[in-house]
Amino acid sequence: MISVDEALARLFALVSPLGNETVPLISAAGRVLAADVAARRDQPPFAASAMDGYAVKATEAGLHAQFKVIGESAAGHGFDGAVKAGQAVRIFTGAPVPEGASHVVIQEDVERRGDLITIVAPQDQGDNIRPLGTDFRSGDAIAGPRRLSPEDVALLAAMNVAEVPVTRRPTVALISTGDELVMPGERPRRDQIIASNTFGLHALLTRLGAEPRLLPIARDNRESLETTFWLAQGADLIVTIGGASVGDHDLVGDVAAAMGMERAFYKIAMRPGKPLMAGRMGNAVMVGLPGNPVSAMVCGHIFLAPMIHAMLGLGASRRPALKARLTRPLGANGPREHYQRAIVDQGKITVFDRQDSSLLSLLSRANALAISPPRAEAMPTGAEIDYIPL
Amino acid sequence: MISVDEALARLFALVSPLGNETVPLISAAGRVLAADVAARRDQPPFAASAMDGYAVKATEAGLHAQFKVIGESAAGHGFDGAVKAGQAVRIFTGAPVPEGASHVVIQEDVERRGDLITIVAPQDQGDNIRPLGTDFRSGDAIAGPRRLSPEDVALLAAMNVAEVPVTRRPTVALISTGDELVMPGERPRRDQIIASNTFGLHALLTRLGAEPRLLPIARDNRESLETTFWLAQGADLIVTIGGASVGDHDLVGDVAAAMGMERAFYKIAMRPGKPLMAGRMGNAVMVGLPGNPVSAMVCGHIFLAPMIHAMLGLGASRRPALKARLTRPLGANGPREHYQRAIVDQGKITVFDRQDSSLLSLLSRANALAISPPRAEAMPTGAEIDYIPL
Repeated sequence: MISVDEALARLFALVSPLGNETVPLISAAGRVLAADVAARRDQPPFAASAMDGYAVKATEAGLHAQFKVIGESAAGHGFDGAVKAGQAVRIFTGAPVPEGASHVVIQEDVERRGDLITIVAPQDQGDNIRPLGTDFRSGDAIAGPRRLSPEDVALLAAMNVAEVPVTRRPTVALISTGDELVMPGERPRRDQIIASNTFGLHALLTRLGAEPRLLPIARDNRESLETTFWLAQGADLIVTIGGASVGDHDLVGDVAAAMGMERAFYKIAMRPGKPLMAGRMGNAVMVGLPGNPVSAMVCGHIFLAPMIHAMLGLGASRRPALKARLTRPLGANGPREHYQRAIVDQGKITVFDRQDSSLLSLLSRANALAISPPRAEAMPTGAEIDYIPL
Repeated sequence: MISVDEALARLFALVSPLGNETVPLISAAGRVLAADVAARRDQPPFAASAMDGYAVKATEAGLHAQFKVIGESAAGHGFDGAVKAGQAVRIFTGAPVPEGASHVVIQEDVERRGDLITIVAPQDQGDNIRPLGTDFRSGDAIAGPRRLSPEDVALLAAMNVAEVPVTRRPTVALISTGDELVMPGERPRRDQIIASNTFGLHALLTRLGAEPRLLPIARDNRESLETTFWLAQGADLIVTIGGASVGDHDLVGDVAAAMGMERAFYKIAMRPGKPLMAGRMGNAVMVGLPGNPVSAMVCGHIFLAPMIHAMLGLGASRRPALKARLTRPLGANGPREHYQRAIVDQGKITVFDRQDSSLLSLLSRANALAISPPRAEAMPTGAEIDYIPL
């Protein structure tokens, strides 16, 4: 048996960052910036007023000083002339500070009569001007790779970046295998089961930034599996679920091998989870997950999510764990890393009593997987443990 | 001035949950389940084997007992007959336990020769059978409203739910106002600025589950604003950005009022943030945000996000704050609730020194808004403060 970290290292060895494509800014949020992108201008592009008020020469901005208002500078409508001694320009927040001016008296500090203003408060709180380039200068870059947030998108817009280089979304073919499976909406016989893993993994992969495709269910025979593998051609990642022990055979592994996959099995020291199959098949990477619904989803979080991150260029690392305090004692762990369904609320974690890997209902109720390392000792209430948010 | 909570209460009074629509399960993740949805079957739909092994009568499953293997039960291919005294059926994980059998001997506990098996280990660790309905029973419900996770989608599939009632996505019209604005990709004059708020808010609203529409930039005149408001017709929420103090006029407020908006201004005791405008305009709710990029995005997180949640049926409440410990001292706060850009890492929060509300670059670098309540005292390194993740 190998550790979860060792299994991840072997999976990372199979994948590499995908190529880039260019998308319009309006579609860029959530995508992974593939290269550094530089600002195409300074922001602000001119010295700008930080307040509504009057632009004057700083040397003249003393208490009781008087000025003649000679014009106005508003956003989008700067003042064309220059401010000379004894002159002021009415100015609004964000508007360009006119030539010659170096201080903005806020309007609350002024008495105005007709075209004349008088400063009525001391001007010792700064000049109320944002210098050219305060926010960023032309050429300043947002560094890739990074997942673009709404705030990044706002910044890219301000930088006048209309198109963005992003990593291509990994396409993932999802194949359920099993004679017992039918699709949701069908009328199953009593000995049939609804295919659920592919739907859950489809949602998870979409959230991760991949482009999943749900393939027809493969039946437990060579012809059906071959047909389905052919349908998966072109995908970056092919994920099969179940079929690793059909009767006494590893049907999926046999068919995949016959179709040219260099396969490897990893017996991983984890719960839930069974041997994982992985290898290369032509240009695609193939991963075989256990058919048990809870195991398939947990393996999706623990193995597929980091693989998708790596393919997106975000680096090859385990999903970072968070920490929370136990609301009740947790028993000692056996030799396998244990991922237990739990609820985290306000920094406190409640690990469910029942952890039977067939219980999807408990997985749906959980919002976290508590992690017990191999041979972890029993832990008391209040002890801090690692978890992965769902 | 009113508090952030009071402002939210007034905004919530303007919105109510939207109607429902039905979507196929494959598109349901991230949507808000609008009603309880009941399982259409039991899971498992039969008593199922939890292991690979042999199904026998529990009363006969003693050490050294011998059985004749009379058939096989595999997933999708149950055994049709009944298991009688002295008989066993080869069975695989997930397969139906045949009539008459009540215990599965795991294959490791058996010696097999031809059609005969002998139990070679004591059977005191349970029956290895998952009873019918262990995961859920027909009629068991997933309760709405809730945002559907990938795990929920897997569960709904297993329940044989092919279509799901969800709350309609709120449509949001986004209107930038200002003579100084141009769209990304244009060649701005030196006194022009790129419209960035609408792009950032578009990304934020999409992530929240809304359906934003980016409208043409409205210019600082009555005709342009009216035209743009007409384009916004049909939206559930109309968000304007800027234009609340154009020269000495509140142009947006005046035009909106002339078009029938019952408007209210809220002077909110918060930083960054200016007076917020809000009201009803026909069937839509209108919110006017400040034009400063950082203020607009912060108001998006603090006010628009809870409004979208409420419209999705997720309840009317402030965004829940998380807690982290200061990496360095934080100064005392003034009379206004202060949202400061910060980075949270491993439960520790570093609040940026510079908080000038014009700095989008710092907002993009932040991953959290640290919250200082009005008149909060200075806090030392290590003290716990509230934050909202970005």
